[in-house]
Amino acid sequence: MTQRVAVIGAGPSGLAQLRAFQSDAAKGINIPKVVCFEKQSNWGGLWNYTWRTGVDEHGEPVHGSMYRYLWSNGPKEGLEFADYSFEEHFGKQIASYPPRAVMFDYIQGRVKKAGVRDWIRFSTVVRNVTYDADSDKFTVTVHDQATDRMYSEVFDWVVVASGHFSTPNVPEFPGFERFNGRIVHAHDFRDACEFKDKDILIVGTSYSAEDIGSQCWKYGCKSVTVSYRTAPMGFDWPDNWREVPILQRVSEDTAFFADGTSKRVDAIILCTGYKHYFPFLPDDLRLKTRNRLAAADLYMGVVYVHNPKLLYLGMQDQWFTFNMFDAQAWYARDVIMGRIAVPDDKQALMADVAEREAREDAGTDNKYAIHYQGDYVKELIALTDYPDFDVDGACDAFVEWKNHKAENIMGFRNNSYRSVITGTMAPQHHTPWKDALDDSMEAYLRN
Amino acid sequence: MTQRVAVIGAGPSGLAQLRAFQSDAAKGINIPKVVCFEKQSNWGGLWNYTWRTGVDEHGEPVHGSMYRYLWSNGPKEGLEFADYSFEEHFGKQIASYPPRAVMFDYIQGRVKKAGVRDWIRFSTVVRNVTYDADSDKFTVTVHDQATDRMYSEVFDWVVVASGHFSTPNVPEFPGFERFNGRIVHAHDFRDACEFKDKDILIVGTSYSAEDIGSQCWKYGCKSVTVSYRTAPMGFDWPDNWREVPILQRVSEDTAFFADGTSKRVDAIILCTGYKHYFPFLPDDLRLKTRNRLAAADLYMGVVYVHNPKLLYLGMQDQWFTFNMFDAQAWYARDVIMGRIAVPDDKQALMADVAEREAREDAGTDNKYAIHYQGDYVKELIALTDYPDFDVDGACDAFVEWKNHKAENIMGFRNNSYRSVITGTMAPQHHTPWKDALDDSMEAYLRN
Repeated sequence: MTQRVAVIGAGPSGLAQLRAFQSDAAKGINIPKVVCFEKQSNWGGLWNYTWRTGVDEHGEPVHGSMYRYLWSNGPKEGLEFADYSFEEHFGKQIASYPPRAVMFDYIQGRVKKAGVRDWIRFSTVVRNVTYDADSDKFTVTVHDQATDRMYSEVFDWVVVASGHFSTPNVPEFPGFERFNGRIVHAHDFRDACEFKDKDILIVGTSYSAEDIGSQCWKYGCKSVTVSYRTAPMGFDWPDNWREVPILQRVSEDTAFFADGTSKRVDAIILCTGYKHYFPFLPDDLRLKTRNRLAAADLYMGVVYVHNPKLLYLGMQDQWFTFNMFDAQAWYARDVIMGRIAVPDDKQALMADVAEREAREDAGTDNKYAIHYQGDYVKELIALTDYPDFDVDGACDAFVEWKNHKAENIMGFRNNSYRSVITGTMAPQHHTPWKDALDDSMEAYLRN
Repeated sequence: MTQRVAVIGAGPSGLAQLRAFQSDAAKGINIPKVVCFEKQSNWGGLWNYTWRTGVDEHGEPVHGSMYRYLWSNGPKEGLEFADYSFEEHFGKQIASYPPRAVMFDYIQGRVKKAGVRDWIRFSTVVRNVTYDADSDKFTVTVHDQATDRMYSEVFDWVVVASGHFSTPNVPEFPGFERFNGRIVHAHDFRDACEFKDKDILIVGTSYSAEDIGSQCWKYGCKSVTVSYRTAPMGFDWPDNWREVPILQRVSEDTAFFADGTSKRVDAIILCTGYKHYFPFLPDDLRLKTRNRLAAADLYMGVVYVHNPKLLYLGMQDQWFTFNMFDAQAWYARDVIMGRIAVPDDKQALMADVAEREAREDAGTDNKYAIHYQGDYVKELIALTDYPDFDVDGACDAFVEWKNHKAENIMGFRNNSYRSVITGTMAPQHHTPWKDALDDSMEAYLRN
C-alpha cells in the first residue's frame, strides 16, 4: 500500500517538502503519494504578491503579508538552497539583497525544474484535519474554491507548512475607534507610495517596523515616528525619523506617548507581529507556541510530540529560512520514508524540546542565536542527503549583516557577501537601495 | 427530551430568533435549549462597529462592514420592531434616519429587555456543521477563541443567521497590482476623513456606492467619480461628482474608463457587493444563492429545502430588514415548536421556491419589489403571534423614500415619516444630514 502524505501550503516550506520527495523519486526510489493543498491560486506562499488585503477573491483571509517594494532584508547568502544556487537559476551571480520579484523567480525556479506543480491542488483551503487513533490515519477536509466543493481524503501523514507570518497580531490602543486616518497592520501594508508626504506612526520594533518605516522613508513619507514597548531599535536613522516610548492613546489626529510627548500623524502602521494560527486543526493537533527558535512541542523542531505522524515545517522564529525549511523537509521526508526513527516515547520527545528551549534561553545575544539556529540546521542536514554546505559561513554572513545594519541602516543592502554554496562573491548592486525605485527583476539583474 | 437549537450569529437576525423563543418562554411555554454562537465579542452583527479591518483580534475575517459615520440609509419607519418601538426604547419619537450608534442602541434595547444575553457564547466561531441522517441531528463544532478550545455539541435544529454582507466580492481590474493609492472594498471602509481632499473612484452603483460616495463628499473629499457597469445611479449629484462607464484599467495614479475618458485618482473604493459565504457548512447544508428577494432553495424563504431541520434567516436581498428578520424568526420558531408543519415532500418545498422566484421575476420596478417583499412579510406574520402591523404603511414609507432620494440625494435624510407601529410622526431632525458632522447618539437625540 502506498502511503499518502498531505502537505498543507505551497510556500517555501511546503515546496521544500515536495522537492525533498521528488529528489528521492528522481533516484528511482518509490515515494508516497504526496498531495499539497494550497489556498492561493499560485505557489510561493508569502512570496506570491497580491494587491489584495483583508480577504481574498474567495472570502478567505489573504495569506500574503508581502508589500510591493520589499527587498530581502537579509543577505541571500544566508538562505540559498544548497541544491539549487542563485547562479544555477540566473546563470550568473547576483547582488545580495534581491527584491521580491527576483526572490519569487528563484523560489519558483527550483520547483519548476523538479516538475512538482501537479502535486499541488490550488485554490483549495484546508477546513479541517482529524486523526483517528484506531486506523492511525488523518482525514483532511478541504474546500475547492474553484468548484465550490468540499471533500475529504485520508492520509497517513500530515505536514503543516502553512507558515506563521500571515495572521496578524493586532492590538488595540485607546482612541483607535476615533482616529481619523488609516490604521493598518503590516500584514495589509502594500504600496509605500500611499504614504508619500504623510506623517506615519509605526508601532513596534521588529523587522516589519524597521523595514516598512525604511520603505516609507525611501518612497517619500514626511516623517516616521516609531513607538517602542521595551527599547528603541537604536539605528542611526534619518533626520525625519524619531523613536518614542509606547503609545498610550490617540485622538482624531494625534498620538500620545508614555514620555508625555505627542505627534500629529496621518496613519498608524501596526508592526506588532503575527500569530501561529491554525483554524483548520483541532485541539489535539494544533501547535501552540510563541515565536521562538525552539518552538514548543516539536521534536527536532519538526515532529509534533503529541502525535508524531503530524509534522510541522518552519514554525520557528527565523534567522535561517529557506535552507532551514529544506533541512526540515528532508528530515520530515526521511521520517516518513522510515529512514529516521522517531523515539516511540513521548517523554523522550518532550525532553528533546526541553533541551532545545533551555539552550535557546541560555543565549544572550544575536550572535549566539544565529549560531544556535545554524547548529540546528547542521544537526538536521547531517541526518539526510540534503547537500552539505558551509553553515558557519552563512552564520558569518548574518553577523556581518547585523554589523552592516548598525553601520548604515539605509545602506546595508549595498553590501555583498560570498555564496556558501558556490563560493562566488556577489557583485555590488548597480544602484544604492535608497535610490533604486525601480525594483523590477529586469532592473535588478542589470548588473 | 428538550430539543436543542443552535443559532449561528447574534446580529439582528440571530437576536430576533432569541427574542422569538424568549417571548414564548415569557408566556410560560416550554422552549428548546437555544445556544447562540457569535464570532464577535459583542452582539449586534453588522451594527457592532469596529475600527478593525481584514482579520479580527483572533485572526478571523472581520464580520463588520459598518463605517464610522453611517446613518440608516432607509427610514426607520420601514424597519421598526413590531414588539418594541423606537418610542418605547427612547421614551420619545425620534427622527427618521438614525446614525449607527442610535440604531445599535435600539437593537440592543429589545434583547436587553428580553434578558437573552446569556444564551449567547461570544468570541466563538462556528468551524463546522454536519448532519447525521440516522440520528437526524446536527453536530456543531466551534472554536472558543477566549480559551482557544474547540468543541462540538449536538443539536436538533440549526438556524443560520450569519448574514450576507460580510464577505466582500472583490473583482480585479487590470493594473491594480501597480496602482499607488489605496484600493479598498466597502467592507473595509471605515472613516471618511481618511479621504478628505482626495479624488476618489468608486466602483459600483448599489447602496454602498451611493452612501460611501455621499459620505466622503460630506466629509470633504475633493471629487467623487463613480464607475458603473450597466447604468448610472442618475441622482442629481453635487458638482464634484461624476458618473462614468465601467473601469477598464488603472495605471499608477489614473483610472481609464470605457468611454475613453480618464481621471487621476488617489484611492479606489470597490462597492462591488458581498457574497453569501458559509465556510462552516459542508456541501449538503450550504446555501448557494444570488442576492435576490426570492433566495434559492429556501421554502417560505426560511427552510432549507435539502434539509428542513436547517433554517436560514435574512438571506434575501432586502427592502425590509429587522421586521422581516423578526417575521422569519417567529416563523422558524413555530416550525421548531411544531406549530407550523413543513410539507414532508421536497417537491412541494421546491415548488414554493419556484413560485416565489417566478413572482419576483415578473416584477419590473422598485414599487413592485417593495410590495413583493411586504407581501412576504405579511404572509409570514399571519402564521405566528408576531404583532401585526401596517406593512402597507411601511411599503409607502419606502416608496416615499425612493422619491425623496430622487428629489434630493444629499437631503433625503432630512425627511420624516409616520411610525406604522405607534402611529406617531417622526420629528424633523435638528440639523440637515450634510451638516450634521457630530452623529453621536447624544447629538442625534437632542430634538
